[in-house]
Amino acid sequence: LIAGTPDAEIVAVGSELLTPSRLDTNSLWITDRLNLLGVEVVGKLIIGDDRNRLAAAVSSALTRTPIIIVTGGLGPTEDDVTRDAVAQALKRRIEFRQDLCDQIADRFARMNRPMAEINKRQAWAIAGSAALPNPNGTAPGLWIEDAGRIVMLLPGPPRELKPMFTDHCEARLRAALPELHIATVQFRVAGIGESDLDALISPVYMQYTNPVTTVLAAPGDVQVHLRARCASQQEARALVNEVGAQVETLLGDRIYSRNGDPLEAALGHLLRERGETLSVAESCTGGLLGERITSVAGSSDYFRGGFLTYTNEIKAALLGIDRDLLAKHTAVSEPVALAMAAGARERTKSTYALSVTGYAGPDDGQGVPVGQVFLGLASAQSVQAREVRFIGDRERIRSLAAITAMDWLRRRLMR
Amino acid sequence: LIAGTPDAEIVAVGSELLTPSRLDTNSLWITDRLNLLGVEVVGKLIIGDDRNRLAAAVSSALTRTPIIIVTGGLGPTEDDVTRDAVAQALKRRIEFRQDLCDQIADRFARMNRPMAEINKRQAWAIAGSAALPNPNGTAPGLWIEDAGRIVMLLPGPPRELKPMFTDHCEARLRAALPELHIATVQFRVAGIGESDLDALISPVYMQYTNPVTTVLAAPGDVQVHLRARCASQQEARALVNEVGAQVETLLGDRIYSRNGDPLEAALGHLLRERGETLSVAESCTGGLLGERITSVAGSSDYFRGGFLTYTNEIKAALLGIDRDLLAKHTAVSEPVALAMAAGARERTKSTYALSVTGYAGPDDGQGVPVGQVFLGLASAQSVQAREVRFIGDRERIRSLAAITAMDWLRRRLMR
Repeated sequence: LIAGTPDAEIVAVGSELLTPSRLDTNSLWITDRLNLLGVEVVGKLIIGDDRNRLAAAVSSALTRTPIIIVTGGLGPTEDDVTRDAVAQALKRRIEFRQDLCDQIADRFARMNRPMAEINKRQAWAIAGSAALPNPNGTAPGLWIEDAGRIVMLLPGPPRELKPMFTDHCEARLRAALPELHIATVQFRVAGIGESDLDALISPVYMQYTNPVTTVLAAPGDVQVHLRARCASQQEARALVNEVGAQVETLLGDRIYSRNGDPLEAALGHLLRERGETLSVAESCTGGLLGERITSVAGSSDYFRGGFLTYTNEIKAALLGIDRDLLAKHTAVSEPVALAMAAGARERTKSTYALSVTGYAGPDDGQGVPVGQVFLGLASAQSVQAREVRFIGDRERIRSLAAITAMDWLRRRLMR
Repeated sequence: LIAGTPDAEIVAVGSELLTPSRLDTNSLWITDRLNLLGVEVVGKLIIGDDRNRLAAAVSSALTRTPIIIVTGGLGPTEDDVTRDAVAQALKRRIEFRQDLCDQIADRFARMNRPMAEINKRQAWAIAGSAALPNPNGTAPGLWIEDAGRIVMLLPGPPRELKPMFTDHCEARLRAALPELHIATVQFRVAGIGESDLDALISPVYMQYTNPVTTVLAAPGDVQVHLRARCASQQEARALVNEVGAQVETLLGDRIYSRNGDPLEAALGHLLRERGETLSVAESCTGGLLGERITSVAGSSDYFRGGFLTYTNEIKAALLGIDRDLLAKHTAVSEPVALAMAAGARERTKSTYALSVTGYAGPDDGQGVPVGQVFLGLASAQSVQAREVRFIGDRERIRSLAAITAMDWLRRRLMR
């Protein structure tokens, strides 16, 4: 369908994305997925809920770029102008589709809620478009092919957009693209920062223009993506394997996943394989460690439970921590981290227990700087503690503490 | 200088901003500064280092918007195309300015470094532009007035951009704008979906084009923003108050915050005010409820702790839930939610305890559909339970369960 360079533009719609507090983060995820298909993003636009501006922007994008992805503005309110604006840009009608209306009504019925009249607006589609099912919301997506160009209309909420794109857009897009074989490897890495990682592996990947190497960083979680584009799958696979093997040698057991799984899934996989169980005792993370572990479906196979002990009194009452120990060392100390892990393991009869106690900020605690954290790890053989120090705001410190605790146990189980 | 509505578009230039790992965050800061001057941002564009694409984008922006701010691409390399592209869009020449060249040379001299020949490229300016000094880098900014429109070219690095904008652009901009004052109100709302809320309040806000009303939605958290632009502050304030009062009447105690605070902060504020405390007992949320509550700095004033009881055995062991009760009703049931809340309250001696038990999916549990959740709330007076049903994936169901539990207690405390 698409001849020439398969470039894309992403148009994010929503007046909230033009305020000082909101960024269009969907486009990062979409860019990553597009790159994996060999499509480059050549421009991004962010437009408010303004039909004429949006129509003009899409019209103009259509003159220069063959793939246009519009996200957001598919809701049921007057503010949601995407369908109308794109129809205007493509000079097409919009039409009521009874099948879409029935799907939306069915969704409300399953929620035991009446369907508001306003939601019928979401059953209007651009003439000639294919509707893309949305199991996670009321707005269907739309896929339009028009004179060698493709326009996709996708909902703004990431939990609606992402499955719609992977389940319904990627195969269609692949079929529309000139034949090119792509092979990829994705490593997820813990326990090393972005700059250190880059210094370590760039001497390898800088030698190659194919595969392209991208390093993506979030606090505590660095990803390395390799992508080769070749005339044959075999050739592309051989290239990424060649570079991937060198990267693996350099990063060693800091790599926790090769299939995109998050750290908690990698840890859970190891525990399930061994038939072992885990519990937690959390102070400064307040539930985040348990939340991360149980974000994986099926985590009840290995996660038993835990204790949120936010005050000294509760540490004593729930985990049996000696009050003199707390008084002598304070709650943020190695002896308390050890006692928390041991107490949680004993009370839940789990194979392992992880504990976290620290100062997440914003204020320093009793002369101890913000970011000072002690982790504990109890098993049948031993109870150990680690002192770590993180830099950043409250959210970042808590997140890094939870990640570091999970990665500690993961590496232990790998040995 | 500028007649009519002083709207702005921001154009960020740089191929790195089109990768999966980098966002244009300068635009948030610029938007905030512009809003304070009464200027609305009506569009944002992100373009790679591509002269023709950039020239076309700026040309097109100039036809619809009177203020254009271009950031990035002012460096000395071939990749830095902003000066040339904007000159092309404005149909102006670029010219060598000896005074700019001297300033750049002077900067290198102060750093005791030789000035590279390539840096002379930064002494070329668009004909008729005013140069904006850059004390933190070699790239001067440019300010261009053109037939009732303003175009600013600013460097990309935030430490160069920000002082240049505040020191050299804001006063010029203020002088060019019609006098305008802004007043805003922000409501955050729980317990009502976006469509229902919009159906309820749109008959009010649709009567007004000033203030502008924006409804922002995330699962379980809807925000309503009102913003008035008037010739005087008094008038703007009166307008937002007039509309705000009507919205407040319609939404009642579903409004939990008027200052941007999240739900957990609003709940925490009420507990602190009353000198009361809270604990939690979580099953399907696995720590998320505690995590949300403790994401607020200072939450140790009212949060005591909690129990993550992910299996029946642990519910019995940690919270003293009767095994026969679990066997008879299953873990996802009203009696178990009641017993979890009562058990947590008793063991932590807190004023209130919230409990959550449910099926977060992806699989149905024992004939009960995914999304079925029971919440419990224990106080000195009573122990109550609520049955709720959510639709969505695991993450959404867990998030809605935590939000609904917190909002239940918040509304109880409001009475």
